[in-house]
Amino acid sequence: MEIQLKEGERIDELQRNGYRIIQRENGFCFGMDAVLLSGFACAKKGDRVLDLGTGTGIIPLLMRAKTEAACFRALEIQPEMAGMATRSVALNDLQDTIEIVEGDIRRASSLFGFGVFDVVTSNPPYMPAGKGLVNPDDKKAAARHEVFCTFEDVAREASRVLKPGGHFYLVHRPSRLTEIFETLGRHKLEPKRMKFVHPYREKEANLVLMDAVLGGKPYLRLEAPLIVYREPGKYTDEIYEIYGY
Amino acid sequence: MEIQLKEGERIDELQRNGYRIIQRENGFCFGMDAVLLSGFACAKKGDRVLDLGTGTGIIPLLMRAKTEAACFRALEIQPEMAGMATRSVALNDLQDTIEIVEGDIRRASSLFGFGVFDVVTSNPPYMPAGKGLVNPDDKKAAARHEVFCTFEDVAREASRVLKPGGHFYLVHRPSRLTEIFETLGRHKLEPKRMKFVHPYREKEANLVLMDAVLGGKPYLRLEAPLIVYREPGKYTDEIYEIYGY
Repeated sequence: MEIQLKEGERIDELQRNGYRIIQRENGFCFGMDAVLLSGFACAKKGDRVLDLGTGTGIIPLLMRAKTEAACFRALEIQPEMAGMATRSVALNDLQDTIEIVEGDIRRASSLFGFGVFDVVTSNPPYMPAGKGLVNPDDKKAAARHEVFCTFEDVAREASRVLKPGGHFYLVHRPSRLTEIFETLGRHKLEPKRMKFVHPYREKEANLVLMDAVLGGKPYLRLEAPLIVYREPGKYTDEIYEIYGY
Repeated sequence: MEIQLKEGERIDELQRNGYRIIQRENGFCFGMDAVLLSGFACAKKGDRVLDLGTGTGIIPLLMRAKTEAACFRALEIQPEMAGMATRSVALNDLQDTIEIVEGDIRRASSLFGFGVFDVVTSNPPYMPAGKGLVNPDDKKAAARHEVFCTFEDVAREASRVLKPGGHFYLVHRPSRLTEIFETLGRHKLEPKRMKFVHPYREKEANLVLMDAVLGGKPYLRLEAPLIVYREPGKYTDEIYEIYGY
């Protein structure tokens, strides 16, 4: 399919099913976080999957490549990002299974309904609004800072749109783990599986991957750690595996 | 000092300052959990330290060897265990700094007062009472199952006896992490530092070490994982280091 690129956009290979993605040279490009979350998340054959705050659409694209889920919806509030993600879907001829929806995470359950998805994924902004250095470029700021929604909003809407027993997969910062547990708990999302990502074997974790089940019974499995680098500039085998090389 | 051993008791070396400990051949012997917690916990010069549910007294003995804390109190409800721990303290001539107190964790704040310790340590029973296979030998059952106290009791009393800003160090099962976070939060104990223990590099964690601060601000550091075995029967270097070989 012929896709029109806008100024400053480029097409990158995803190394998966021949899929490609449109990104902006100077805008927010997808990070390792999204790739690791897609590697961690599961969807069964026939599942309905929603991605909250999809950005470039990276997570539904990678999840589409690795699972047999029936359909993907992906919500993005920034019109320019949503448009770019929509063109990436078209670029890969996936309009039948992935739909990018421009809209507000805080209204996800109004848009999609209650109890309708088997799986929700989200790589939400990590930093509370007003904390740290906020990027003057809005599109990047929204991906990193809680400008358009808080984690409370994301968890609440995930809980509402999920079927009982449905899975909420998320990636976040370990530094906010107390708040994450508390917020998930308030919305009946029970952490069942968790994996920490450490840049090096001897370093503190800088990411946490979580699988929380709506109405699940409390029993957490803490998976083997994921180590990113063997040494500076050299990825570990597990990272190569997730990236699908 | 001449110490009387009872039938079925033996003396083991602790590989620290020449310290020794009395244990029962067929009773509950201290485990790696207690050693790892002692390695993880800190106490500053002059600190007052309390161990809740001390069993053989292993934690205050190891903490005494590695820190310059001013004094240790250690609470144990089972008279036979408390007596054995008291004799271990005497065996090492540490009566001046370690006092074993026979008593109930649930009454710790009545026994010692509110806001009087800088550090509380605990290796509490991991299993809820009435769950799993309860050991017919009472002394072992109490160490593994919440027979005499629940985690709620331990956290509440830790919170009460600690000074503001004081540290509660504990070891527990990752499977109960949701409940642990919730319970600590209810008692204003904020997790600040956490470390997971994996038997092997590729296996799920079976222990979690936590450092929670009374009234601390939310910000968690998730430390590098602790791996126990390099291969079957061979400890990793970090384990040898903690054991002080």
